Amino acid sequence: MFKKRTNADEAKELFLNYFSPITEIEVLPIEDCDGRIIAENITATVDVPHYRRAAMDGFAVIASDTLGAGSGSPVMLRSANEMDKGVCVRVHTGSPMPEGADAVVMIEDTQIRADNVEIFAQIHPFKNVGEIGEDVSKGELIQKSGHRLRPCDIAVLASLGIDNLKVFRKPLVVIIPTGEELVPRNKKDLKAGEVYETNGLMASLYFKKWGFDVRALKIVTDSPGLIKEAILSNLDADMIITSGGTSVGKRDYVPAVVESIGKLLVHGVGISPGKPTALGIIEGKPVVCMPGYPVAGIVALFYFARSAIRKLGNIPDDPDRIVRAVLSEKISGRTGYKTFARVRLENGKAIPLATSGAGILSSVSKADGFVILPENVEGLNGGEEVEVVLIE
Amino acid sequence: MFKKRTNADEAKELFLNYFSPITEIEVLPIEDCDGRIIAENITATVDVPHYRRAAMDGFAVIASDTLGAGSGSPVMLRSANEMDKGVCVRVHTGSPMPEGADAVVMIEDTQIRADNVEIFAQIHPFKNVGEIGEDVSKGELIQKSGHRLRPCDIAVLASLGIDNLKVFRKPLVVIIPTGEELVPRNKKDLKAGEVYETNGLMASLYFKKWGFDVRALKIVTDSPGLIKEAILSNLDADMIITSGGTSVGKRDYVPAVVESIGKLLVHGVGISPGKPTALGIIEGKPVVCMPGYPVAGIVALFYFARSAIRKLGNIPDDPDRIVRAVLSEKISGRTGYKTFARVRLENGKAIPLATSGAGILSSVSKADGFVILPENVEGLNGGEEVEVVLIE
Repeated sequence: MFKKRTNADEAKELFLNYFSPITEIEVLPIEDCDGRIIAENITATVDVPHYRRAAMDGFAVIASDTLGAGSGSPVMLRSANEMDKGVCVRVHTGSPMPEGADAVVMIEDTQIRADNVEIFAQIHPFKNVGEIGEDVSKGELIQKSGHRLRPCDIAVLASLGIDNLKVFRKPLVVIIPTGEELVPRNKKDLKAGEVYETNGLMASLYFKKWGFDVRALKIVTDSPGLIKEAILSNLDADMIITSGGTSVGKRDYVPAVVESIGKLLVHGVGISPGKPTALGIIEGKPVVCMPGYPVAGIVALFYFARSAIRKLGNIPDDPDRIVRAVLSEKISGRTGYKTFARVRLENGKAIPLATSGAGILSSVSKADGFVILPENVEGLNGGEEVEVVLIE
Repeated sequence: MFKKRTNADEAKELFLNYFSPITEIEVLPIEDCDGRIIAENITATVDVPHYRRAAMDGFAVIASDTLGAGSGSPVMLRSANEMDKGVCVRVHTGSPMPEGADAVVMIEDTQIRADNVEIFAQIHPFKNVGEIGEDVSKGELIQKSGHRLRPCDIAVLASLGIDNLKVFRKPLVVIIPTGEELVPRNKKDLKAGEVYETNGLMASLYFKKWGFDVRALKIVTDSPGLIKEAILSNLDADMIITSGGTSVGKRDYVPAVVESIGKLLVHGVGISPGKPTALGIIEGKPVVCMPGYPVAGIVALFYFARSAIRKLGNIPDDPDRIVRAVLSEKISGRTGYKTFARVRLENGKAIPLATSGAGILSSVSKADGFVILPENVEGLNGGEEVEVVLIE
C-alpha cells in the first residue's frame, strides 16, 4: 500500500521547486533557433528600414507640388531621376526615396505623358513614405531573454542582420523502461506474461515532439541493481524518466532505488489513472517514475514530466490546446483524485470513452482529449459544457 | 491596379479545389511515424493482452473460496505455485493468471502465515483480472487510413508488435524569395534600398515547424526569365512558394510568370494585410505567391499556404490554437477585407498592436496572435470578447 497519497497540484509544486532551469547557453545560427529560448536581450543596433522608402509604386513628389490636383484637374510634373521643384521621380515599393521628395503619388493616380506625368491626386507630406526605423528603430529592445522564438521573431532578428543567437541549452532526457515482462518489438511469438515495451517508445516520441533531446535506453529488468546502474550511468542527462516498477508489489523497485541514491519526494499521487507515480531528485536532476500501466504512464507524463522538462528548458507557460464541447453523457470522477477522462469529439460533443482502466491504452488512442475532473468533483452530467485538453 | 479582388474564402476554396492530396505511400519504421498520416487500415491480428493477466499485485484465487471472508473473519488458503481448490498463487500486476484461478485478492487484503495466506476480503469472479483482448481485441479495426499519428497511437500499434507502417509521402515545398532589393544576411553595410531577405527564411521555418520538407532557394532577382527558370527547375517539389514581386508595379513579374507557365487563379485577395497575394497552379502543383511586405506575406502563408500544404499532405482539419480574451480597445477592420489585427495578450486582455502596416514585421513579433475581423465587420469595440488565434 502507498504510505501516502499526495494531492496532484501539491506534488507538482513540490517537485518543480526542487530543481532549477538550465542556465548553460549555446550560440546557434539564427535559422536553427525556431522553438528555442533566447538567452540574451537584443537591442536593435540599426534602423529597419535604414533608409526612407517608398511604400507604394508611383512617383515621388514634393507634396506641395500636388496642390489642387484632382481626378478632373491633373497637375503636370516633369519626370526626372533627381528631385527638384516641379519634378517627380519614378519609385517602386521599397525603393529609396529620392532626396528632397516627401511623398509618393500612387501609380494609379498618375498618367505618363512623354517626359511629363499627370498627377490626379493632391497628397499630404509623408503620404506613402516609410520612414527610417518605422519597423524597428535603433536602440529599441527587440527581444527579451526568455522568449520562445517563433519564425516571425527570427525573421525580425534577421532583418537586423543578426546571424547568431544565444539560446539556453536544450534539456536531454533519458528514458529507462523497466519490467521483466517487457520484450523488444523484434521478438515475435510472445509467451504468456510477455508484453511489448511501449511506454518508453511513447515517452520518447512525446519528448521529441515537444522539441527535446532523448536518450532511450533498452529494457531494464526488475532488478534494483540494474535499475540503479542505468540511472547512475546516465546522470549526464538533465532529467530521468523511468517507466514501470512503481507500484507496491514485490517486483516494484524503482521508488526504493530513487530513494537509495537521491531523494524520493512523492510516491502515490492523487491522479487517476496514475496513482503509482513517483517523483524524486537525484543529484539535482528531476526523476519522474511513470507507472507501467500505459494510461497511468501517459497521465504522469503529461501532468508531471512535461511541466518538469519545460521548467528545465526555460520554456514559458503555454496554454494547452483546448476545445470546448458538450458532454454527451455523465462521467464520474474518482473522489480525491484529479481524474483524466478520455473523450472522443464529434460535432461539438465530447463522448466519454473511459474514466478508469489504467491498462487500456487503446482508450487514449481512440480519444481526442481529456476532460480533467478536479478532486472535489464527483462527476459531470451529460449536457454540461466542458474543456477538452487535446491529446497531441 | 488589381483587375479584381477575390473574397478570401472564395479564393481559398477555388485554390484548394485545383489540386489533389499526395497519394504516394512510403513504409516507415513505426518510431519515425509521429505526426505522419497513416495510409492503411490496421486491424489487430492479436489480442492485447494475449493472456489473462493479474490487474493487481496479490493472490490469484478461485473466487468462491473467499466466500464469507471479511476484515475480521479471514479465510485461510494454502499458498502454492499451481491452482487448486483451497489454494492461492502469488501474482504481480500484469503476470499471467494461473490456470483455474478466476480472481485476484489485492495484497493489501491478505496476510501471509508461513505456507498459508489469510484472505480478508470476499471477492467476485473476474475481480482484478484483465481478460484477453481487454485493451485491443483481435479483429478490431485499430487505425483508420487518414489519421494523423500521435505517440499514443504509435504505442498502441507497437503493443500489437507492428514494426512498420504505410504513411503518405510528406510534401516537399520549394521556397523562392524574389526581389532585386534583397540581400543575403552575410552581406554587411547595406546601401539604401537594400534589405535582408527574411520572408523566405520565415516561410522555411514555418513549413519545417509544421513538419514538412523544405527546399529553400537563394534570392532570385526581379527578372521574369530567372523567376521562370527557378520555378521550372523545381517542379519536382509538391508546392511552390514565391515571395515578393506580386504587386502591380513595374518590377512585379511573379503573377505573370505563373500565368505564362501555368494557370493564375487569383491575383488580389480580400485579406488585409495581404491583398497582393496571388494563387496559381503549375503542372498540377499549387503555387502561393506571397507579397513581399512581410506582414502581408505571413498572412498569405497562414491563410493560404498552410491550408494548401495540409491538403497536399492529407492532414485532417486541426483547430487553430485559440485563446479567448477581452479587447482592451476598439479595432477597425478594412471593409471588404478579412482583417488580421495583431494583438498582444496580457491578463486575459487582447491589446491591439496594429491592423494595417503590411511592412511592419515587428508588429507580428510583438504580437501573441491575430484577431480576425470578417469582411462585413467594420470594427470591434473595447470590452468585446474575441478569439485570438495564437501565432506559432
